Amino acid sequence: MIEITPLTGIGEVRPGDDLAALLLAAMQRCGMECHHDDVLVVTQKIVSKAQGRFVVLDDVVPGQEAQRLAAITRKDARLVQLVLDESTAILRAVPHVLIARHRLGHVMANAGIDRSNIGAGNGDRALLLPVDPDGTAALLHRQLDMPVVISDSFGRPWRMGVVAVAIGAAGLPALDDRRGEMDRDGRTLEVTQIALGDIIATAACLATGEGAEGIPAAVIRGYPLRGMARPAADLVRPVHEDLFA
Amino acid sequence: MIEITPLTGIGEVRPGDDLAALLLAAMQRCGMECHHDDVLVVTQKIVSKAQGRFVVLDDVVPGQEAQRLAAITRKDARLVQLVLDESTAILRAVPHVLIARHRLGHVMANAGIDRSNIGAGNGDRALLLPVDPDGTAALLHRQLDMPVVISDSFGRPWRMGVVAVAIGAAGLPALDDRRGEMDRDGRTLEVTQIALGDIIATAACLATGEGAEGIPAAVIRGYPLRGMARPAADLVRPVHEDLFA
Repeated sequence: MIEITPLTGIGEVRPGDDLAALLLAAMQRCGMECHHDDVLVVTQKIVSKAQGRFVVLDDVVPGQEAQRLAAITRKDARLVQLVLDESTAILRAVPHVLIARHRLGHVMANAGIDRSNIGAGNGDRALLLPVDPDGTAALLHRQLDMPVVISDSFGRPWRMGVVAVAIGAAGLPALDDRRGEMDRDGRTLEVTQIALGDIIATAACLATGEGAEGIPAAVIRGYPLRGMARPAADLVRPVHEDLFA
Repeated sequence: MIEITPLTGIGEVRPGDDLAALLLAAMQRCGMECHHDDVLVVTQKIVSKAQGRFVVLDDVVPGQEAQRLAAITRKDARLVQLVLDESTAILRAVPHVLIARHRLGHVMANAGIDRSNIGAGNGDRALLLPVDPDGTAALLHRQLDMPVVISDSFGRPWRMGVVAVAIGAAGLPALDDRRGEMDRDGRTLEVTQIALGDIIATAACLATGEGAEGIPAAVIRGYPLRGMARPAADLVRPVHEDLFA
């Protein structure tokens, strides 16, 4: 059986906060110990907040390209400038939609920049993705001695609604390569690479919620981890293999 | 806390089998009762098998378009013909990749047609998606008095590896619309539609496995369902809204 426990009571995270200490305290409050075969899932938002990745929108001066895209997408030109600053390519710009390839490789609406749940009185602030979420996951993994996934909400082409994906991972195979394994009938498996990081990030949503609940972390117990650890960067399809670039 | 329990021991499902009876027996063996607030997740494969959705590849005569796409994708022309028969549009055809819009609306590699884990001695058979997975979910929901999701493996653009999605759902909001809700700071939420069916299907993978394990169902307990039931069809983005058609 798999158990997913929300880590409640973490409260508002502030720039400079010690995330490992906050998460450890939350696990203790929730009656969890650090088990090296549990997986700790941390939502992007508190990682970004601890890193102080806030930008005051009034400080952003939109350039010509940002103004052009803002007119197309009907978005705040300052936000569009941030998206341009954070990304390496714009994939789609239509009314209300701006899809970019973030410099980390992930293809996301608004390059993952967030304006909700970023703390009271922040109407004119935006929150960027963490600087190096795989690095943060690796640090938390060392500090807490358990596998770590940093999750974020993602929309998808062709499908309605958001799910979660892993933008950081350490201590587990974010991409679980089963190539060469046989199915029960002795045929080579057709599905051979499992997006385990994304699966874990999405499963954690059931405990943290994707809505207004604001629970920023969860622990997943009972999944039999195996295979070589691989970071969330391995979940990004190389651009030259991509069919929809 | 969320609990996800694999339903083991279901064994090979055959055309005409009574899925509700098989699933009920499995739940009883696993010490689960039907709870009307648990969610039963059933993988596509056993639904298709119970419906006898096998096709003998030697019976398929590939037409001209199938042969053309087979040459491009380096796939079996008979399989490509089945993909054409099952879909309303081909979105991408490149070596080893054939992405189609299934007649149910879902955009999937090979229109969801499966050649692995379909039973011994079936090297020359393929397994199509269920005829009406939302209808099957609704039937199981009535028979078992619990919400039901029918899941399938999906690849995604831009990301490596597969996750799961819901191709059938009943008794729960497969698309959970939170538009109008506020975040903790009183701002309207930016993320307002949750792909709950896909999230539940993906979470169940942690118990069923996506690999060779062959566990075809799981029960998710502890998720606070709310809102109006909506089928998995609501997870399909309308073609006119799609940016990547």
